[in-house]
Amino acid sequence: MTNITFPPAPSDKAALEEGAAFSPRFDANGLITAVVTDADTNALLMVAHMNATSLAMTLETGIAHYWSRSRGKLWKKGETSGNVQHIVSIATDCDQDAVHLSVRVAGDGATCHTGRRTCFYRNVSIRDGKPVLVDLGMKPLDDKDGHA
Amino acid sequence: MTNITFPPAPSDKAALEEGAAFSPRFDANGLITAVVTDADTNALLMVAHMNATSLAMTLETGIAHYWSRSRGKLWKKGETSGNVQHIVSIATDCDQDAVHLSVRVAGDGATCHTGRRTCFYRNVSIRDGKPVLVDLGMKPLDDKDGHA
Repeated sequence: MTNITFPPAPSDKAALEEGAAFSPRFDANGLITAVVTDADTNALLMVAHMNATSLAMTLETGIAHYWSRSRGKLWKKGETSGNVQHIVSIATDCDQDAVHLSVRVAGDGATCHTGRRTCFYRNVSIRDGKPVLVDLGMKPLDDKDGHA
Repeated sequence: MTNITFPPAPSDKAALEEGAAFSPRFDANGLITAVVTDADTNALLMVAHMNATSLAMTLETGIAHYWSRSRGKLWKKGETSGNVQHIVSIATDCDQDAVHLSVRVAGDGATCHTGRRTCFYRNVSIRDGKPVLVDLGMKPLDDKDGHA
């Protein structure tokens, strides 16, 4: 599917943190955390997971691919809904155990399978000493899509 | 340390996704992913993990606490560096397996233990068909702090 491969993470911390080699540190399940934000507004859209194949396909195609933990398979986000995510940039963090995808969402712009623009549509608030969720009143857009 | 507790996640998907109960879905290691952004710029600062205690302490104190996986202990971010993170808002996503912390960073504003404002200081680029990291040229600020 793709020719892109990733080298194992260096044992040298300086190489991992300051080097030019991209050696994503997949976890025990072979996954890395992907944080997805809107390239135009910086808004946080979703958090998902990638295995080596989905990360390689994302880099190769410029379209975000994930690993669906719930369905146990490769997941081209937006394949059914049309809300494909076009990659503007990908970054990694100091210890290379997370990636940041800055994207533009096609179609009606929904990211969440509930039809909203972002999966983060509820704030946590403390009421009478207990945490509760407060809906931010985001209106679902037109379409739906599966999620991890 | 804190009186805040979290109910188990409801089996009913609609309750989980649209309800007002905050029932964070900690993973097999008792952790939830926390995405941290700058409240003023929306910039992605870091990705970390929280257990129930650190999440409860964050809600109770308004200061971000994490679980350091590398050190195996509660981690009040900025305790030694002064780069404490003051919570502006906390949100959760549709299936409540991630939280989003919008914060203001105290001290010199560094989030990364390398001294930079964000942990995401390198972009992934494809050169000659291979992924490499391109340093974004962010200047390290003054201070340092441990990370997960």
